[in-house]
Amino acid sequence: MTLAFIFVNCNVDEGSTAERNVKKVRGVVESHETSGAYDIILKVKADTEAELRDIIKNIRKVRGVGAAITSIVYGNDQAD
Amino acid sequence: MTLAFIFVNCNVDEGSTAERNVKKVRGVVESHETSGAYDIILKVKADTEAELRDIIKNIRKVRGVGAAITSIVYGNDQAD
Amino acid sequence: MTLAFIFVNCNVDEGSTAERNVKKVRGVVESHETSGAYDIILKVKADTEAELRDIIKNIRKVRGVGAAITSIVYGNDQAD
Amino acid sequence: MTLAFIFVNCNVDEGSTAERNVKKVRGVVESHETSGAYDIILKVKADTEAELRDIIKNIRKVRGVGAAITSIVYGNDQAD
Amino acid sequence: MTLAFIFVNCNVDEGSTAERNVKKVRGVVESHETSGAYDIILKVKADTEAELRDIIKNIRKVRGVGAAITSIVYGNDQAD
Amino acid sequence: MTLAFIFVNCNVDEGSTAERNVKKVRGVVESHETSGAYDIILKVKADTEAELRDIIKNIRKVRGVGAAITSIVYGNDQAD
Amino acid sequence: MTLAFIFVNCNVDEGSTAERNVKKVRGVVESHETSGAYDIILKVKADTEAELRDIIKNIRKVRGVGAAITSIVYGNDQAD
Amino acid sequence: MTLAFIFVNCNVDEGSTAERNVKKVRGVVESHETSGAYDIILKVKADTEAELRDIIKNIRKVRGVGAAITSIVYGNDQAD
Repeated sequence: MTLAFIFVNCNVDEGSTAERNVKKVRGVVESHETSGAYDIILKVKADTEAELRDIIKNIRKVRGVGAAITSIVYGNDQAD
Repeated sequence: MTLAFIFVNCNVDEGSTAERNVKKVRGVVESHETSGAYDIILKVKADTEAELRDIIKNIRKVRGVGAAITSIVYGNDQAD
Repeated sequence: MTLAFIFVNCNVDEGSTAERNVKKVRGVVESHETSGAYDIILKVKADTEAELRDIIKNIRKVRGVGAAITSIVYGNDQAD
Repeated sequence: MTLAFIFVNCNVDEGSTAERNVKKVRGVVESHETSGAYDIILKVKADTEAELRDIIKNIRKVRGVGAAITSIVYGNDQAD
Repeated sequence: MTLAFIFVNCNVDEGSTAERNVKKVRGVVESHETSGAYDIILKVKADTEAELRDIIKNIRKVRGVGAAITSIVYGNDQAD
Repeated sequence: MTLAFIFVNCNVDEGSTAERNVKKVRGVVESHETSGAYDIILKVKADTEAELRDIIKNIRKVRGVGAAITSIVYGNDQAD
Repeated sequence: MTLAFIFVNCNVDEGSTAERNVKKVRGVVESHETSGAYDIILKVKADTEAELRDIIKNIRKVRGVGAAITSIVYGNDQAD
Repeated sequence: MTLAFIFVNCNVDEGSTAERNVKKVRGVVESHETSGAYDIILKVKADTEAELRDIIKNIRKVRGVGAAITSIVYGNDQAD
């Protein structure tokens, strides 16, 4: 299982559209509107790297998404 | 309740030490070692903003933590 | 009361338009055209986080605004 | 009169020390602890550019200040 | 006299157009196509801050210029 | 011989198009789709600096390429 | 097989030391001293993600290495 | 002849020392203390790439220099 965070920046006046729709992309397990350098922080889960690439591509197709940077979690060891 | 992500960069040769100990800080609910610009991505929960500031200060005191950038989640709406 | 700084970058040839109009957005208490990484630095005040989010959305709708990064002030303690 | 914003990042475990002392530097008119890329956002006022440079140097001497980036306000036109 | 460097990034397929025309803007004394984070580095001279702001606005109007970041030189002390 | 790395960011929904076509540009010897700040990392070889500039220009003309940052290799000493 | 690029920044006066030694770390297949934001660009190969993490840790232990950012190659499709 | 700009960031309380001494490094033809992301912007001239690398190494040895990023000028075509 591959876990990753995806930092999304939205086209400046399409934040709400992007935020509403990006959650619906298969593989997105969490979606947070945030302060700071990124507009939305997504957590995604995929069974394989190929599936992760598809999720990333689908996220980038969502209307209003302007940029998406992927950070892959190593060994994805959870605190709780 | 305040939810935030904290992007941690470790002193270059103290990554493991930082990663092991930063999880133990009260308020840290998730800790992930990651590829990309940040060494560790933390999710923290606090009841108040003052409590969030204490959590951030405690994280910055952990040995091996070199920098910590906070991104506050608005309305912290979860996908799943 | 929530205080925040919003770093605005304008579409390259719409700086003046953005600068003139972004000041008028309710909640903007200061607007400065600046050198460096950001074109305009705004200080905004809101009674609640929800109101802050609306202010941010309204700022992003102003013609000529290309990007807007929010930095939330903790406890907003003033020097003077 | 020259107005500028100075974005300060603190040495990771000296944030409180820096925040307490940097306010006292002559010329600092506002000091805010913030979320996001910068730990502290200062607003400073100087009569001349030479005075601004001294203020910057004094800020950089404050214990716990790790980096300081200056953004000069053009014509410093205030909204309120 | 005010001296400043302006870091220009061009719209991705309009680099040559921008580079050819940005040199002609009154106040630009040097224009260099460069490797690294910026496509063009300009040195500009202005008699007053107001004139510097006009030069910046004119640079941003040049076709193909996508972004322009200004770095103001203090006391502009030259080595040679 | 000049060796350089070119960090490419694609227009958000044209990644695949860019990735497929950018490989075909004469001078590109390696093309990798990557996680992190850049979408594609290219290695290019040129006989002269002038030729390197042409390769960069051709890369920036590829449909879907949004930005391209060049990092020139000094003395390009290979490990293996 | 996992392929990754690692962007290394050296402690400012230990570049040569770092550059000489970082090549010797098992898994580093290419090492390039470069202009731009990174001092050294490494290409590394690992059989597993766990092995990649070890390589990253060993690189960060090399004297003179100040920071190391990892960019993982998807499907690592080579042009030549 | 190779022309390059070098963006220097100084150790936070050693700016003056660095600024005074970095000008003296052979090959530095201009040195400017600046606002914004970089503390000092240097212009350097070298006859060969190898000489440029030596200049960069000597700059990085100057006391107070914390980081130095090199941007190489293509064809270094001057406006005036």
